[in-house]
Amino acid sequence: MRSVEIYDTTLRDGSQGEGISFSVEDKIKIALKLDSMGFHYIEGGWPGSNPKDMEFFSRISSHGLKHSLLTAFGSTRKPEIKAEQDLNLKSILESGVKVATLVGKTWDFHVTHALNTNLDENIRMIRESIGFLKRNGLRVFHDAEHFFDGLKANPEYALATLRAAVEGGAETLVLCDTNGGSMPEEITGAIKIVMENFRVPIGIHCHNDCDMAVANSVIAVQAGASQVQGTINGYGERCGNANLCSLIPNLSLKCDLETLSKDNIGKLTQLSRYVSEVANLHPATSQPYVGSSAFAHKGGIHVSAILKSPRTYEHIEPELVGNQRRVLVSELSGMSNLLYKYKEMNIDLELHKEENRGLLEHIKDMENKGYQFEGAEGSFELMLRKLKDGYQEPFKLEDLRVTTEVKDNLPGYTQSVIKISVGDQVVLTAAEGNGPVNALDNALRKALDKFYPRIRDMHLKDYKVRVLDEKDGTGAQVRVLIETSNGKKTWGTVGVSENIIDASWDALVDSITYGLLQSEQEETQEVE
Amino acid sequence: MRSVEIYDTTLRDGSQGEGISFSVEDKIKIALKLDSMGFHYIEGGWPGSNPKDMEFFSRISSHGLKHSLLTAFGSTRKPEIKAEQDLNLKSILESGVKVATLVGKTWDFHVTHALNTNLDENIRMIRESIGFLKRNGLRVFHDAEHFFDGLKANPEYALATLRAAVEGGAETLVLCDTNGGSMPEEITGAIKIVMENFRVPIGIHCHNDCDMAVANSVIAVQAGASQVQGTINGYGERCGNANLCSLIPNLSLKCDLETLSKDNIGKLTQLSRYVSEVANLHPATSQPYVGSSAFAHKGGIHVSAILKSPRTYEHIEPELVGNQRRVLVSELSGMSNLLYKYKEMNIDLELHKEENRGLLEHIKDMENKGYQFEGAEGSFELMLRKLKDGYQEPFKLEDLRVTTEVKDNLPGYTQSVIKISVGDQVVLTAAEGNGPVNALDNALRKALDKFYPRIRDMHLKDYKVRVLDEKDGTGAQVRVLIETSNGKKTWGTVGVSENIIDASWDALVDSITYGLLQSEQEETQEVE
Repeated sequence: MRSVEIYDTTLRDGSQGEGISFSVEDKIKIALKLDSMGFHYIEGGWPGSNPKDMEFFSRISSHGLKHSLLTAFGSTRKPEIKAEQDLNLKSILESGVKVATLVGKTWDFHVTHALNTNLDENIRMIRESIGFLKRNGLRVFHDAEHFFDGLKANPEYALATLRAAVEGGAETLVLCDTNGGSMPEEITGAIKIVMENFRVPIGIHCHNDCDMAVANSVIAVQAGASQVQGTINGYGERCGNANLCSLIPNLSLKCDLETLSKDNIGKLTQLSRYVSEVANLHPATSQPYVGSSAFAHKGGIHVSAILKSPRTYEHIEPELVGNQRRVLVSELSGMSNLLYKYKEMNIDLELHKEENRGLLEHIKDMENKGYQFEGAEGSFELMLRKLKDGYQEPFKLEDLRVTTEVKDNLPGYTQSVIKISVGDQVVLTAAEGNGPVNALDNALRKALDKFYPRIRDMHLKDYKVRVLDEKDGTGAQVRVLIETSNGKKTWGTVGVSENIIDASWDALVDSITYGLLQSEQEETQEVE
Repeated sequence: MRSVEIYDTTLRDGSQGEGISFSVEDKIKIALKLDSMGFHYIEGGWPGSNPKDMEFFSRISSHGLKHSLLTAFGSTRKPEIKAEQDLNLKSILESGVKVATLVGKTWDFHVTHALNTNLDENIRMIRESIGFLKRNGLRVFHDAEHFFDGLKANPEYALATLRAAVEGGAETLVLCDTNGGSMPEEITGAIKIVMENFRVPIGIHCHNDCDMAVANSVIAVQAGASQVQGTINGYGERCGNANLCSLIPNLSLKCDLETLSKDNIGKLTQLSRYVSEVANLHPATSQPYVGSSAFAHKGGIHVSAILKSPRTYEHIEPELVGNQRRVLVSELSGMSNLLYKYKEMNIDLELHKEENRGLLEHIKDMENKGYQFEGAEGSFELMLRKLKDGYQEPFKLEDLRVTTEVKDNLPGYTQSVIKISVGDQVVLTAAEGNGPVNALDNALRKALDKFYPRIRDMHLKDYKVRVLDEKDGTGAQVRVLIETSNGKKTWGTVGVSENIIDASWDALVDSITYGLLQSEQEETQEVE
């Protein structure tokens, strides 16, 4: 089986995505994760461009990567100086890597208009910069920036830059679609030309400006490329880079090529979510292979077929990439969706057909009011459990008050008072907090602690507010989604109200209630 | 120039996306928008599947589409009954459309495992259902579900289903990659086979489960398909459908094919955002062509080149799709980014080089604290304006208090009191609200109204809360982003604090302040 090298540039090109700002600590976490999954190359950063990247290279060396080779990125030397005088090239040596990726210009227009130098000097810059790193014992990949645009504009010159790279000692020619504007046939045509002219391995580095980065990379590999460069979740400047979370399974599961091991492909979903958490970005739910919606079925007909055989509406088994099947309940649902949910949640409701229909109508009605149970399956399950005979709520709110004051330009001060009952005991507690929701959360935890000490294991992971009808401004209906974890399991809950405090309180109460019922079940199971 | 028909299925397949729930009103709004832009076909829904879709067809007829043909979706008749007895087919007639799209099974496995019928009966279902609609005067497109999987599993049978469709009277054979699992070479190969066997126009309907929907559609058109089906923003079940916002410009601007008019392609960005607003989903910022990041430049080297010539890092002019260039300021910025911003905002700061560097450091520092100026350019501009000599703040907060109470299971009651000064006048106002931020917003507007009556034109469009460091739960640092509009212009502002009230107040004050300064400028310009 032919194998393809996976080159990750999340830490360099990925960090150029809007809204992304990795700390050195973040970069180390991600590098260790990629290493543990056997990515062939991890581009750590551009040591010559900022002190943070340099610090990364100095700190990562103490961790010692086990499976991946670390690379440093840089550009060819400045015009009209010697390679050994170039600070950027010297920084690459100082970074301590064994492999460098040097970007050079191949498009004549860029040489004259962005670099402000002449075409011959650029050729020398490429040859001498690569030569300098080679003489200092490094392996060098040559990133041919704007190769496809360059080839169209001036094919002779574009090929001359590649020749200079090979003469300098580059071991791989990485063809970059830097502006992401190329169509598939341009990629295949260009690779054919390069293969006719050079006997050097080819890499591909695509951007997604035409929604084609993954497809163009697959096509490039099929045309002969043996290295693909991309980023986790496709993060990157503008529309991002080729998404390795799509590209790796496409190459391995669809094109019969070797990339990462089967086990490691099975960790891609976890990797995708880990990186989005570190990047502090919400995961794209519809992301191919690894998104939470990637194997989520909504239409009633699809769900009914899935129950007969998942292969009817799933192109692969979700487990191959570490993802899982989900069934959504919404206005497009049929009874199949509801029955699947019961099974999934292990709920034995024993409702009559009519009661089931009534419940489905009730759910659709709540969705019309702004509730969303996709992503708030904790609240959904609670709603079902409440229908069961013998359901007992762990606590009940009597009343609450929360006040925030700002005085003399000091930070806001917030205090809450809540009264709740647990069985026949009534508890009144007051608590401070960093804000109203935090103050209520603190008061609730304080009140419940002596009844349910396991509340200490639960912590809120995310808190999202969505204005539902923008035209009403700050007076609009809001939906609050809370994600809570007890270390073993994570669940989402939802609250909807015109008042953000009400909505937050509802989602908070559901989150704690669900967690308490959950740990009750676990304890029962452990005893059994 | 060869032309390609654009078939939009946002209202049917798009509505199967997770988190999407269109009202009848929403569907009418979107249909009218698509009509105004000259989409060739608009699939309105599946009249046989739910009453909402039927209501849509009955209400849209009074609007009278000017440019687009409305189509209704349905499946072939049920097994073992006559076509004229099938409720689903009758609903299509009742919907009043002139064109129907009927989906039929082409994959033998689906016939036996999902439909639970035999292979011959399925052939009859296709032929007779299409024939029935044709006899009743409709044009019919045949959606060949799972065509690519079917062709692999049993090529003879897959082609026999297409033959039945042609015999029934289908005018176009739409090949569907229903599970989205096909690679480009499978698409080209299959289309070649279909073209060898039939002299009927071919359509393509791709899903995005392999991140390939747009590329596979382009490749299908290049192989001979003359109709593309897709959705706005790629909304759809699981990973979505082929994204028409990418596909249309790819076909028109890159492949030299005719789709929509040049003017209408120039409205794609606006369309994309309109549909995401109606769907109540946040637009994907990195979306190709139409995303707010699609032409946003962050790396210092890119920005410096863009200032020399935009073509250096942009594959098309953003205006061609109605988008615009943006320059981001972040820790990866160089001085070029800051200078571009000054120019863009028309700010004449006249800072020394050293002062500029200091400002850049200050910005990076605030971003480290959790501020994000991407998407909050109102706050960014205010920060710069405050540095200018003679800046006067329109008002100043003295203190505030806001309280929410919940009693006896009634909805929360919120009251706020604020004290502000405008020049040397001090105003104390109290206001109620649907929640703390709304109560503060109301109090602030009440206090400022007599000083700045133009505040009435401003309204809040979106209010977003982001927990910045999840491990601290409800006590974490939060970032509030507010989007405000005065009907002419929209701006974003940001506040960061551990207290959501503080953060909201800061973003709110920036939003009003920016709006007041903005309308002051406009008035000055109008007078000039």
